[in-house]
Amino acid sequence: MEFSSKLLERAVNEMSQLPGIGKRTALRLVLYMLRQPKEQTLALSEALQSMRNEVKFCKSCHNISDVELCEICSNPKRNETIICVVEDVRDVMAIENTSSFRGLYHVLGGKISPMDGIGPHDLNIESLVHKVKAGHVSELIFALSSTMEGDTTNFYIYKQIKDCNITTSTIARGISVGDELEYADEITLGRSITNRIPFESSIKL
Amino acid sequence: MEFSSKLLERAVNEMSQLPGIGKRTALRLVLYMLRQPKEQTLALSEALQSMRNEVKFCKSCHNISDVELCEICSNPKRNETIICVVEDVRDVMAIENTSSFRGLYHVLGGKISPMDGIGPHDLNIESLVHKVKAGHVSELIFALSSTMEGDTTNFYIYKQIKDCNITTSTIARGISVGDELEYADEITLGRSITNRIPFESSIKL
Repeated sequence: MEFSSKLLERAVNEMSQLPGIGKRTALRLVLYMLRQPKEQTLALSEALQSMRNEVKFCKSCHNISDVELCEICSNPKRNETIICVVEDVRDVMAIENTSSFRGLYHVLGGKISPMDGIGPHDLNIESLVHKVKAGHVSELIFALSSTMEGDTTNFYIYKQIKDCNITTSTIARGISVGDELEYADEITLGRSITNRIPFESSIKL
Repeated sequence: MEFSSKLLERAVNEMSQLPGIGKRTALRLVLYMLRQPKEQTLALSEALQSMRNEVKFCKSCHNISDVELCEICSNPKRNETIICVVEDVRDVMAIENTSSFRGLYHVLGGKISPMDGIGPHDLNIESLVHKVKAGHVSELIFALSSTMEGDTTNFYIYKQIKDCNITTSTIARGISVGDELEYADEITLGRSITNRIPFESSIKL
């Protein structure tokens, strides 16, 4: 791609470093900015810079936060003995949206994935094990994605805390609400039968 | 969407102002930036700002440029009597890539589209008509997209310069190279027969 301006070329190149944004999309976005008022581009670039420079990670759960201890961890109404282990900040947001969990979180920052060069020491696992061993935790809920990497990560953590005499659980796998059985995959359908729940408890929900 | 950080929220909101980028995509991009070195975000935000503040439009053809008169307009090897009228900077790049045009361009900056509130005075039409009336132009090639708005824009310009005694042409519409006839739409196929060209001139290409 030949550019008539070095400034344009640099902006397109930087923009296309982002995942899922190729050169053509980057060019479309950058040309759109040129048609909008200068203030919009200024606001975007300032927001990105101050976010990148000033954002903190909660020292307890590693969630993104503006202060040292995030809002969830510092909320006295939440049950600090139950910890939900998630991969990512987005998973905290997704679970918070359901309003069905009143404990705390622990954000690992990814999952163990040797193929991508991510080992246990690249994740926030040590601080979790430390928290459990300190004895303040009664239950650990594993809420990682149901993939080979997620299962590996769950098991790696489980091995390290299994002697700590706490409850460990994992979120239920089964047919999504509203889904039809004939389109469900075999493994999910099989698990949903093996792990069936009393009918009375399903109608309470 | 509930955010655990105001800085994150602001960055996501600004990012999702861009066309085709929703809140979820913006969050994914912003979280990606947080995992990359700070320098990358800094480079992006600086490139966007300096592009938006310093980029110029060529005073002759309105193409994006770093200097007053763009590289194409200031190139003495190009034929300045033939002007190719295009909608957008991207069209200049696309035609330049083909290496089949050695004249100059004129970037309109869009097409007449009353539905989107874009009239002739929002586009760089006046300067084009002025250029033609000054008498330096021998041929005008309309290379706008083949839509109702493109045709309207072509015709609007044509009406203003038709007494100037210059050649006007429009890029050929026809079956794309490599396409099969049975999948072509009727209008394109019809035009490609009406505007057939001597076989000898097609095999030269």
